[in-house]
Amino acid sequence: MPRTRPQSPKPTSAPSAELESNVGYMLRRAQLAVFADFVACQSAPRTRPGQYAVLLLIGRHPGLSQSALCDQLSIKRANLVPLLNELKRRGLAIRRPSLTDRRSNCLYLLPAGEKLVARVQKAERIHESRIVQLLGTQRQQQLLTMLEQLSHLRLSAPKAD
Amino acid sequence: MPRTRPQSPKPTSAPSAELESNVGYMLRRAQLAVFADFVACQSAPRTRPGQYAVLLLIGRHPGLSQSALCDQLSIKRANLVPLLNELKRRGLAIRRPSLTDRRSNCLYLLPAGEKLVARVQKAERIHESRIVQLLGTQRQQQLLTMLEQLSHLRLSAPKAD
Repeated sequence: MPRTRPQSPKPTSAPSAELESNVGYMLRRAQLAVFADFVACQSAPRTRPGQYAVLLLIGRHPGLSQSALCDQLSIKRANLVPLLNELKRRGLAIRRPSLTDRRSNCLYLLPAGEKLVARVQKAERIHESRIVQLLGTQRQQQLLTMLEQLSHLRLSAPKAD
Repeated sequence: MPRTRPQSPKPTSAPSAELESNVGYMLRRAQLAVFADFVACQSAPRTRPGQYAVLLLIGRHPGLSQSALCDQLSIKRANLVPLLNELKRRGLAIRRPSLTDRRSNCLYLLPAGEKLVARVQKAERIHESRIVQLLGTQRQQQLLTMLEQLSHLRLSAPKAD
């Protein structure tokens, strides 16, 4: 059988001793590994986590505006545009001008996009079960709680150095 | 006083209900917030987390090779090169050909790089104390343990979907 797994990053070596207690660095390493696993759990053609999140949200909220999508995913409009262009090119999703606000675009999945979401969701369940296997259900829940707390860190005013 | 804080991402809204139990999505949100806080804790000129990690490791290991640095930080060589070029342009670090292996470059901090690392380390301590304040010491430790576990997720063979 041909090797269809995408080129994955190098296996993770031990964290750098200077940075192993640095939360930002450890978050980034974990995120890269988790994203790579999400992709590796799919069969080809594979969908990146960012594309999947966009397709999932459009599928759940047909007619979603681009700005609402940016807010939901904490991504900049400039980064969303090329991603939406790619989804359009692949026949997965389309933009239609809003009937109520001409400056706004509404987003919809096309049938191929709906099929793709359903397919990736199966892979996602395998991926998530691998995380549960690694951490256990209770610790995974603790992790999600801490990650949610951390995502509000930048809301409070930092002291100057 | 002029506003010197860099343009930061929008304040984090509640996570999307469809994705709030998705570990990858929650990791990414937390990582963006933690990186933004690390930058916001510094006074201008600010140093990005990736640049800081590179400078810190070169400072601790003078003569470090580019490939060792890539391994330590799990980054691709193609992404390291522009970063090193920027550090050179700013007079913070230099590359010198290895005396033992002509194909390899050794990395060294320049005095301005050493000063910058010392300055950013102060900001980093404030940043880390903000995380401890948010999570508590014990939970922060639990978080680091789980992140280290997750960073090995991609080493094990995933099932196909």
